Amino acid sequence: MKPIIVAAKGKEQLKENWKYCIGTGRLGLALQKEYLDHLKIIQEKIGFKYIRGHGLLSDDVGIYREMKIGDEVKVFYNFTYIDRIFDSFLDLNLRPFIEFGFMPELLASGDQTIFYWKGNVTPPKDYQKWSDLVTVVVKHFIERYGLEEVKKWPFEVWNEPNLVNFWKDANKQEYFKLYKVTATAIKEVNQDLQVGGPAICGGADEWIVDFLGFCHKDKVPVDFVSRHAYTSQSPKKVTPDYYYQDLVDNTDMLHQFEAVRGLIKESAFSNLPFHITEYNTSYSPINPVHDTPLNAAYLARILSEGGDYVDSFSYWTFSDVFEEADVPKAPFHGGFGLMALHAIPKPTFHLFAFFNRLGEEMLYRDAQMIITRKENGAIALVAWNEVMEKGEGFEKEILLKIPVNNDQYFLKRQSVDDNYANPWKVWKEMGRPRFPDKQSVETLREASIPKLTTAKINKEEDGYLKLLLTLSKNEVTLIELSEMKDETETYEGIDDSLITSYSS
Amino acid sequence: MKPIIVAAKGKEQLKENWKYCIGTGRLGLALQKEYLDHLKIIQEKIGFKYIRGHGLLSDDVGIYREMKIGDEVKVFYNFTYIDRIFDSFLDLNLRPFIEFGFMPELLASGDQTIFYWKGNVTPPKDYQKWSDLVTVVVKHFIERYGLEEVKKWPFEVWNEPNLVNFWKDANKQEYFKLYKVTATAIKEVNQDLQVGGPAICGGADEWIVDFLGFCHKDKVPVDFVSRHAYTSQSPKKVTPDYYYQDLVDNTDMLHQFEAVRGLIKESAFSNLPFHITEYNTSYSPINPVHDTPLNAAYLARILSEGGDYVDSFSYWTFSDVFEEADVPKAPFHGGFGLMALHAIPKPTFHLFAFFNRLGEEMLYRDAQMIITRKENGAIALVAWNEVMEKGEGFEKEILLKIPVNNDQYFLKRQSVDDNYANPWKVWKEMGRPRFPDKQSVETLREASIPKLTTAKINKEEDGYLKLLLTLSKNEVTLIELSEMKDETETYEGIDDSLITSYSS
Amino acid sequence: MKPIIVAAKGKEQLKENWKYCIGTGRLGLALQKEYLDHLKIIQEKIGFKYIRGHGLLSDDVGIYREMKIGDEVKVFYNFTYIDRIFDSFLDLNLRPFIEFGFMPELLASGDQTIFYWKGNVTPPKDYQKWSDLVTVVVKHFIERYGLEEVKKWPFEVWNEPNLVNFWKDANKQEYFKLYKVTATAIKEVNQDLQVGGPAICGGADEWIVDFLGFCHKDKVPVDFVSRHAYTSQSPKKVTPDYYYQDLVDNTDMLHQFEAVRGLIKESAFSNLPFHITEYNTSYSPINPVHDTPLNAAYLARILSEGGDYVDSFSYWTFSDVFEEADVPKAPFHGGFGLMALHAIPKPTFHLFAFFNRLGEEMLYRDAQMIITRKENGAIALVAWNEVMEKGEGFEKEILLKIPVNNDQYFLKRQSVDDNYANPWKVWKEMGRPRFPDKQSVETLREASIPKLTTAKINKEEDGYLKLLLTLSKNEVTLIELSEMKDETETYEGIDDSLITSYSS
Amino acid sequence: MKPIIVAAKGKEQLKENWKYCIGTGRLGLALQKEYLDHLKIIQEKIGFKYIRGHGLLSDDVGIYREMKIGDEVKVFYNFTYIDRIFDSFLDLNLRPFIEFGFMPELLASGDQTIFYWKGNVTPPKDYQKWSDLVTVVVKHFIERYGLEEVKKWPFEVWNEPNLVNFWKDANKQEYFKLYKVTATAIKEVNQDLQVGGPAICGGADEWIVDFLGFCHKDKVPVDFVSRHAYTSQSPKKVTPDYYYQDLVDNTDMLHQFEAVRGLIKESAFSNLPFHITEYNTSYSPINPVHDTPLNAAYLARILSEGGDYVDSFSYWTFSDVFEEADVPKAPFHGGFGLMALHAIPKPTFHLFAFFNRLGEEMLYRDAQMIITRKENGAIALVAWNEVMEKGEGFEKEILLKIPVNNDQYFLKRQSVDDNYANPWKVWKEMGRPRFPDKQSVETLREASIPKLTTAKINKEEDGYLKLLLTLSKNEVTLIELSEMKDETETYEGIDDSLITSYSS
Repeated sequence: MKPIIVAAKGKEQLKENWKYCIGTGRLGLALQKEYLDHLKIIQEKIGFKYIRGHGLLSDDVGIYREMKIGDEVKVFYNFTYIDRIFDSFLDLNLRPFIEFGFMPELLASGDQTIFYWKGNVTPPKDYQKWSDLVTVVVKHFIERYGLEEVKKWPFEVWNEPNLVNFWKDANKQEYFKLYKVTATAIKEVNQDLQVGGPAICGGADEWIVDFLGFCHKDKVPVDFVSRHAYTSQSPKKVTPDYYYQDLVDNTDMLHQFEAVRGLIKESAFSNLPFHITEYNTSYSPINPVHDTPLNAAYLARILSEGGDYVDSFSYWTFSDVFEEADVPKAPFHGGFGLMALHAIPKPTFHLFAFFNRLGEEMLYRDAQMIITRKENGAIALVAWNEVMEKGEGFEKEILLKIPVNNDQYFLKRQSVDDNYANPWKVWKEMGRPRFPDKQSVETLREASIPKLTTAKINKEEDGYLKLLLTLSKNEVTLIELSEMKDETETYEGIDDSLITSYSS
Repeated sequence: MKPIIVAAKGKEQLKENWKYCIGTGRLGLALQKEYLDHLKIIQEKIGFKYIRGHGLLSDDVGIYREMKIGDEVKVFYNFTYIDRIFDSFLDLNLRPFIEFGFMPELLASGDQTIFYWKGNVTPPKDYQKWSDLVTVVVKHFIERYGLEEVKKWPFEVWNEPNLVNFWKDANKQEYFKLYKVTATAIKEVNQDLQVGGPAICGGADEWIVDFLGFCHKDKVPVDFVSRHAYTSQSPKKVTPDYYYQDLVDNTDMLHQFEAVRGLIKESAFSNLPFHITEYNTSYSPINPVHDTPLNAAYLARILSEGGDYVDSFSYWTFSDVFEEADVPKAPFHGGFGLMALHAIPKPTFHLFAFFNRLGEEMLYRDAQMIITRKENGAIALVAWNEVMEKGEGFEKEILLKIPVNNDQYFLKRQSVDDNYANPWKVWKEMGRPRFPDKQSVETLREASIPKLTTAKINKEEDGYLKLLLTLSKNEVTLIELSEMKDETETYEGIDDSLITSYSS
Repeated sequence: MKPIIVAAKGKEQLKENWKYCIGTGRLGLALQKEYLDHLKIIQEKIGFKYIRGHGLLSDDVGIYREMKIGDEVKVFYNFTYIDRIFDSFLDLNLRPFIEFGFMPELLASGDQTIFYWKGNVTPPKDYQKWSDLVTVVVKHFIERYGLEEVKKWPFEVWNEPNLVNFWKDANKQEYFKLYKVTATAIKEVNQDLQVGGPAICGGADEWIVDFLGFCHKDKVPVDFVSRHAYTSQSPKKVTPDYYYQDLVDNTDMLHQFEAVRGLIKESAFSNLPFHITEYNTSYSPINPVHDTPLNAAYLARILSEGGDYVDSFSYWTFSDVFEEADVPKAPFHGGFGLMALHAIPKPTFHLFAFFNRLGEEMLYRDAQMIITRKENGAIALVAWNEVMEKGEGFEKEILLKIPVNNDQYFLKRQSVDDNYANPWKVWKEMGRPRFPDKQSVETLREASIPKLTTAKINKEEDGYLKLLLTLSKNEVTLIELSEMKDETETYEGIDDSLITSYSS
Repeated sequence: MKPIIVAAKGKEQLKENWKYCIGTGRLGLALQKEYLDHLKIIQEKIGFKYIRGHGLLSDDVGIYREMKIGDEVKVFYNFTYIDRIFDSFLDLNLRPFIEFGFMPELLASGDQTIFYWKGNVTPPKDYQKWSDLVTVVVKHFIERYGLEEVKKWPFEVWNEPNLVNFWKDANKQEYFKLYKVTATAIKEVNQDLQVGGPAICGGADEWIVDFLGFCHKDKVPVDFVSRHAYTSQSPKKVTPDYYYQDLVDNTDMLHQFEAVRGLIKESAFSNLPFHITEYNTSYSPINPVHDTPLNAAYLARILSEGGDYVDSFSYWTFSDVFEEADVPKAPFHGGFGLMALHAIPKPTFHLFAFFNRLGEEMLYRDAQMIITRKENGAIALVAWNEVMEKGEGFEKEILLKIPVNNDQYFLKRQSVDDNYANPWKVWKEMGRPRFPDKQSVETLREASIPKLTTAKINKEEDGYLKLLLTLSKNEVTLIELSEMKDETETYEGIDDSLITSYSS
């Protein structure tokens, strides 16, 4: 078997674009205890920088209100809930990646809504009032959190206006109008605030071209470009509980990233940052693929390489505390979350946690692996084996030779695959309980811990660590090799063979 | 292979004598944060009822003091520390199992001490002052915690007076005198307080006979008999770091329990409760056997059967926060603790935690297994395979047939053996670091989690669950079988085969 | 000044009916972190037994759903949220006092709703489906929490059906029908479950008579009677922010309690428990009286005497996390809560916390005071001075003589009045900030701590403690007198006058 | 009354030398839970940068050990406890200010000890072994915490060698030898590590001169000078419980600071940093002055001005978890601590917490007051009124005029004096219980909260805030004036006079 010979020195740094931003269900959910419990765990183990979700201006967050004083209607802006929400985010070291939307009912020009929670997706009936709303909201953020802080918050205008269910008639000109009014209002508060769009769903990249053209022509400010990306095909079957789709190859997403980056480069704004403000395998909140180890193995390459093309890509979403398709009807309902209800980490959670252990210096990378070195000399690598075919088998073997300085290393390996750290599987063995009792939840949490293996390994005479990895189907594995100093000799007269049952 | 056919109904209840009491290092250590952190985890997972340790009257706890006022010497009793300690215990739902000892320096008749921490082991130089001390201490406990509470605290007089290093010259008559003075002082505070002894080390059971004879003859109150039990032979090698011994068969300890129970039955106090106030494999605080999976597998049968003979048996001790042989010099130094320094559970911790999951109704028991049923119909069993020979192999297979009512069961199995939940092994792979860094500690904690396996199993047509268990060398395993209702049918049109990579 | 001479022995026990139950905003709010944070504090300091709120069956809790399978409509019952909510309550030692309501939209016969959060108040369009819903919900509770537990949960049918805004047309016959169907469904699950009604708003007590008459005539099960009580007059002014009303005398509420108890006694169900499932001064969620010290002083007598007439009376509500009149627009918005947003206790919180310190033996009670003794000999009294007139002054003096056994007592007094523990006042000094920053919130919390005074007092020669109390306007005060043993003499040669600046 | 007219702009920054370092009881106590609980509160409210205490090398921390291997004696360095201790400090954002001492018993040349806990104060019997110990210890710190971190830790050699009870015969030449050996060993590990001395007790400043002369002459490295300072006179009475002394004027300490600074300036090391590594009123751990409000009022000026003369001054000590004079015999035993046992803050705790609220820009300072401005425009001032005479009265009035920009301010005042936040007084009212029960501890904690007053004040027409302060005897007060925007007008139609009992 031919070994992969790893370089002694990294040519580049691993970009952390994969952990720049994370998606969330509607912001109103951020008032919930379970939501915040999940987010706390996510931040401890991964540590995203920004969080983005819908519903900032929707009525449950409650910012835009009108009150009648005699015959007069006065606007009242209520920040009670949004302050509580953003305080919570900042306490967890997360900054808001603001998405302006959806339409407050009192400002809406129509009654078209989206989702179980009824986000209104019609243009404002009065653009002046919309502009006032944007102005007051941005000013309030600055008053509460300080200008320096808010300058770091990107402001994105609306969500997926190229889809008729997210923006009335997917009216492009109307979107440009909305964008212009919003961007102008923001910049009038402060020129250094960042505004961007068009936040489109994939598959309509002419919107990018047109949007940038419009901004150029109309001299509308734009600080970043945003777009979404999913890799699932049209549904094969839809039931009240689940939505089934096939996936395309994961390189397809990288190609999407690259293609749009190309469009930006060719535009009048060639150096603009490009943010993928949503991505995942399936765009459906009830597709069971999200709960599987495949989802993790499939996305691994995207985490590894996505940052080459885009400034950030924001996994949609951190938690199954989410209500787009009604209140979840079972713990494993195919939700987007890295974490299932009851704080049960799914395999994709571990993918992110594993990447978070990588060092800055990238020594090697290919389609199934990334190898890094840390400042303290430790080697950290993530490898994966996504298998889109059905059935057993599909093991892969990899032989690595890593040049190292120290003589001895402690190897720590953590793995997720179809058999380990797969709480979805255990839940199925439990009979798929919709409302599991506390003991079952406890078991599911235990069943979500990656498989741990450890060993002591020595540098070979040729100066390399030799590592033979076997990857099972859909496995994602993290291997950490720490420099080790054997202290056994400091124990005078130590002799394990004198212990009943044990040998040296 | 011939199956073991388990009874449908238990003939008896599993006695909880194994969790009645737990041992601790000197009471002064209970002021420490790490000590209390360990104890909190122990109580959450096991939940002992009492805690017993040395040093109540030693100078670091600081109760007995004298002060000179002019020419006069006045005794001062200081409860600052012992109040803090007992408050901590009671907050953790632990009652003190009081051991009166060792001698305050100011009351001591000599300067012989034991342990790194120098417990004085000489008789009082003034029995009246000793009696006063006992009286004041007991009264203080009653004032602070209430009489009803303190009535539940056993008071044991001294520790292992049959050993010359624990009691000057192992003078039996002097001990009887100490016992009589102490017991009399306690009963004069309140007749319902419980007092006992002689707290001897094993191998001198004539002390039991003589002690009870003395109490009978002299009409000295005695409410319980206490003794210790260890099963290690004389040392094979002693180094500054470790103390190596062979173990005798574990049935030897059960025979010790039974034999002393027989002596009590034949005495004038035939119905007295009998407490083993210390037991373990080795009596040395630096014997590495305590850190091994063998220690757990070896003790399993004692937990299972010990309660047949004694009213309690108290594992010595809950934590390696312990100082008899100096400050510990490495995380795995062969300490008695269920938990190593840095809050790392050892295999024997899991043995206790596994027993704590058993139900009250005992369906089956033999030398390697105990099977119980819970009120909710669940089956819980612990099985073990202690192997005192060296080398690989030694697997055991067991075939079980368990009569059940429900059609389907969820099986949860947790295991500890030489390869899993064996942080001692991982620490050796790390090069036995004496002062591990935070990351190594984190890994050792992760490496102490039992191996989890799960499955769904169906009742056979004959009404039995059939279970084929394989036990590896030194494995201790807990299997829980919960009644399960398969809800899969409630998911309309569910079809896992429509998920990329997965089958039904 | 003529002293009040307190009895040496109590004639009766203080009834704890005042802490039997507490009201809450719609149950869906119980998913929120701030809600649960408040409730945890409430339980630590007061410890209610039950909690009652609207919205169990409303769509945000999400229990009742329908799904289309082909042409068929199937009902789906979703317990994801209600399980989480009730788990939280039980973790805080609170049982649900169930209120069946409001109508799930899919079951509703009309579209009339109440509140910002739109509770549907129309009868079911299909009583069989309603009955099924009740049955399934009750069975689910039993499956999750056990029959013995659920037997302790009262089930109340609907809320204030005598008001047209809570029940379509306030149709009494329709309510009786709803009650009968519901009660029958519950009892068919288990005869021992408790069901009651009619949960009316005060001022329509003929409903009580008619309801009991109906139950008697139609042999409909009824285990308790319930009603609400408020003591505010019709509004004087209503603004978008506040609702202003005068209060009637607080004895009016006691008369309401007594009158309805009389009606029940005269009915065919003379011994039925009678629960006031809501009470407060004003029924408006934006009446500023709720934020005042007067509210506490006014309600004190009701806490003291209400239990003489009713089996429980449930303060409406524990927290300003509440949404009936939209998202709160300021921390002090006149909400019902014992606790304002940001976990700031209001004066009425302390009223309850003070009552919670009273002993079981009642020594004395009048219109402005209640005096009790605890098992340990301590005296605990609450006194108050509600003043409904405007202006300064209105101090009251009371001279007490309390017969005691011990020679010395430590007096601890905690007080709330217009100047102390009145965060509403401090918030006004801050300029009534609607969205206060963290530092202001911290100050408001500090400003909510009762004024503490302490003293050492001696028994007089006549065997009495003499206590001269001055009560300021709207003060509520708790005085605790603990038996004290002066240990000063145990400090040899102590002499405070040797300390610079201090005297003996 | 003539007002003090405060400057509009600060001429200088308030130096934070007062919070650079804090003293602690022997390091071994840092293993205790209560110790760490106190330290956590201290850090939350004050936030010192360094912590310094005795006993690093004493036997309870257990670093220096010897073991016999056959005939050979091998040294073993045990870092189990010191790692745990320093990990705890760093977790609380505290760096060690290392004091090398006292002598491990196995290295000691004699058996003279100090304190209840028996620190050996004799020179090493073998300077090579001492040098090795220093080397190994410093290297271990670097290995565990990193060189960059340890470079920030000052290393001070021994404690108060000018006193015979701290250093055998107060032998100056022997100290210089010890210093030289230690400093040399440290610098050989790394030249950038900081070493200093002579850590003398006040009253022997010729040691400073001689020490610097010796370093200069012998070319011994020295990076800082250290000394202690106390302001109490010789004892008036000493009892087993308390030690009574008069205090000298607090300016005496400032003069000490200034004088030694002068000596350094005149030396060959004129620019060396000068650290007061211990100071307090009394040097006795059982002087009741430490528990009094006077102690706070007396030290206020030193906190305010001390930083003008010295680079740091380290209050001795943060907590009464302290054992120099045996285990504390009562909660208020005259200990050094900012915090009494049971986590009860003493008045001096609040002095530090108040100073911690000051802004960086110093607007005004005199003997009884310091006034500062914060970045956000708020004014923060601390004023005090220490009175060393006995008796009642002694109020002081101060009239301030502070030029401000904003029209309205919210005033928050917190005060400590003989009547408020004086738990010592309440404990005396309780009869000075030595071992208080939980309820008494709770009351003492409540009694330690500063008195809070608040108000809204307006800028006068002349552009000043006018503030008339009355300071009671021994009061220390913090006043914070925050810019305020009155939002009352945003509440449409608001009218407090419509609330029963209240006026506008």
